[in-house]
Amino acid sequence: MQIDFEEWARRYGTPLYVYDFDRIRENYTRLKEAFSGQKSLIAYAVKANSNLSVIAHLGKLGAGADCVSIGEVLRARAAGIAPYRIIFSGVGKRDEEIRQALEEEILLLNLESEAEMKRVEAVARELGKEARISIRVNPNVDPQTHPYISTGLHENKFGVEIDMAKRMYIYAKNSQWLDPVGIHFHIGSQLTELEPIREAAGMVADLVRSLAAIGVEIRFFDVGGGLGIVYRDENPIDVKAYADVITEAVRGLDLTIVCEPGRFLVGDAGWLVTRVLYEKRNGDKRFVIVDAAMNDLLRPSLYNAYHRIEALFDGEERGEATPAEVVGPICESGDWLGKEVLLPETKPGDLLLIHSAGAYGFTMASNYNTRGRAAEVACEEGRCRLIRDRESFEDQIRLEQAHLEERG
Amino acid sequence: MQIDFEEWARRYGTPLYVYDFDRIRENYTRLKEAFSGQKSLIAYAVKANSNLSVIAHLGKLGAGADCVSIGEVLRARAAGIAPYRIIFSGVGKRDEEIRQALEEEILLLNLESEAEMKRVEAVARELGKEARISIRVNPNVDPQTHPYISTGLHENKFGVEIDMAKRMYIYAKNSQWLDPVGIHFHIGSQLTELEPIREAAGMVADLVRSLAAIGVEIRFFDVGGGLGIVYRDENPIDVKAYADVITEAVRGLDLTIVCEPGRFLVGDAGWLVTRVLYEKRNGDKRFVIVDAAMNDLLRPSLYNAYHRIEALFDGEERGEATPAEVVGPICESGDWLGKEVLLPETKPGDLLLIHSAGAYGFTMASNYNTRGRAAEVACEEGRCRLIRDRESFEDQIRLEQAHLEERG
Repeated sequence: MQIDFEEWARRYGTPLYVYDFDRIRENYTRLKEAFSGQKSLIAYAVKANSNLSVIAHLGKLGAGADCVSIGEVLRARAAGIAPYRIIFSGVGKRDEEIRQALEEEILLLNLESEAEMKRVEAVARELGKEARISIRVNPNVDPQTHPYISTGLHENKFGVEIDMAKRMYIYAKNSQWLDPVGIHFHIGSQLTELEPIREAAGMVADLVRSLAAIGVEIRFFDVGGGLGIVYRDENPIDVKAYADVITEAVRGLDLTIVCEPGRFLVGDAGWLVTRVLYEKRNGDKRFVIVDAAMNDLLRPSLYNAYHRIEALFDGEERGEATPAEVVGPICESGDWLGKEVLLPETKPGDLLLIHSAGAYGFTMASNYNTRGRAAEVACEEGRCRLIRDRESFEDQIRLEQAHLEERG
Repeated sequence: MQIDFEEWARRYGTPLYVYDFDRIRENYTRLKEAFSGQKSLIAYAVKANSNLSVIAHLGKLGAGADCVSIGEVLRARAAGIAPYRIIFSGVGKRDEEIRQALEEEILLLNLESEAEMKRVEAVARELGKEARISIRVNPNVDPQTHPYISTGLHENKFGVEIDMAKRMYIYAKNSQWLDPVGIHFHIGSQLTELEPIREAAGMVADLVRSLAAIGVEIRFFDVGGGLGIVYRDENPIDVKAYADVITEAVRGLDLTIVCEPGRFLVGDAGWLVTRVLYEKRNGDKRFVIVDAAMNDLLRPSLYNAYHRIEALFDGEERGEATPAEVVGPICESGDWLGKEVLLPETKPGDLLLIHSAGAYGFTMASNYNTRGRAAEVACEEGRCRLIRDRESFEDQIRLEQAHLEERG
């Protein structure tokens, strides 16, 4: 759909996150259909964009939820996702989180260490419930992505080695409180190469076969997420080819494929809309200062990530576009949104559009410099609506104010 | 003071920020006394730790506030700092922020570009008020610190070049709506070298003299902040030597020195207290997974910053200390708090203390992975009290929930 960013920026102010729910639907449908020959569950990775309305939108399309904290599980539940479509992953679950997840009767607790398995067993015993579990296998495959979002090498904290996984499955099979029904791997984020996925899926499918031989019957084959999107000029993986690689790996096995896309579903369906405050030059360098900052979108600062920045004003009469650094108002040189961005001269109030900000945008936002977090807007079938209010000063001090007043 | 971290962790849960208000007082007093021969205002850089009770504590000691958003100005006011002790800095002030700051009658608006000066003039005219301003001069001095926190080079977005500053002062002097009473420089954060400060102060003091010659009378000489602290083995600047360098630079001038320390006042007076969840090994690598994460303390991830991590349990019978990576539960390889940390074997529930987390700790915290932000505790004269509640799930969805329900 065509979104009138100028109108929504006027109505709700800037910086503003805008999401295209139609595109999210298209992304979901494309992936779901790629797996059409196979039992599958698309479990949306809530950490990418955890706004309740985004989760609810995907839930209505049939998606489940891949969660990495009890907070995310509760978000999925609040957004109407059924418990049997919820998976709880993550390397560091607290006992209270495990307890709550078991009480919610979610589909799977995905385990990342032997120590964690023992904790889950202990909590399950206390509750008198059998815990459905999967184990995350670390296949030691290099995904060829950014080191911070690569997760499938032994040097990473994620998952367990294949031998350890086997021992854990045998232990779980013999435990009254553990039901090992799933297997999981996830080698990294923003993947653009198919080969590492083929390699990892093959190794993990072989493990499923050898587990079957010793009486451990795996029913859920969880291939994680990590499908890349286009930020600049990446060549993203074709989803049909991706699904085929997975299907090929599990041929002959009776499994439900679980896929956990986050960025793929929402990444290219979101924009951060921001207004120009000032232009300035220091020496030879041109800066365009905007009202969005690293507290709104951390990815450039944290990962040195590229987001395309587009001028939404008519640049015709502004002269030639020249390179500028687009920066925010935060008092830190790390507060930049784009480097060497080709822009015509800007004026205060001009709108800029930061592309591909639907994933890991708002969810990583902070109140650094006492900046209230942006409002969020959803657009669907030609209509837009607010899905999160702009954060006020009062919102920011709510949990502190009473303690100050106690002291007089 | 001796703080019983175990007791407060039990009472308020983990992860938990704990601040030593006695040490903050010592840090403040040391700096204030270093400037004792001179009129001075210590304006606390609120962005370092903006908890209302922290600001109020410093305010009672006599500190003013250096603010970089209207939110920070409002925090300073809410914490009881008088308007005539408040400075509003920052490269990107919105019109509404300028308006509110003028209405609050704060001491100074610190300007960072010509375009911003014109906006301030326009807003002041609308309000019929004269705006007291200072101008941030970018002296092009290399502070020899991390690129993200170095701010005094032309390649940075901060301040204006000396020639431009002169033109701006002349413009301001001739404007009915601008009263140029201050001058400002700040060359970077976590400085450990005195020489760049001497150089910058000398250049800016010379500018004050040449401005006096053309009838612009500067009254506030704002030397910014940036005093480094010890994270590992830094050799921090001696504050007396620092004050002497400044005093020497302005000899013969009738000026109030304004100093804007943030990290120096609160950095070493704060700890992040966290509990061990699990230990695990992947290949040869040892991981200690704790309940704090990059959403609580971003500095390691963002700046590759070192924070000393101390075991608060009796390690005597746990065998030899070996190197471990201390990581949080967030699903990202970038989620680490310490690398190659020498620790004896840990058990679930053991407490670890992350040092020097008083500055740029909580203020940069986010809800990434739907993790509620930590509670904050202040300890003073042998007693500790809560100064911010732990953030609940309900707190996190407060601004979204109604919008979900509207849709049914």
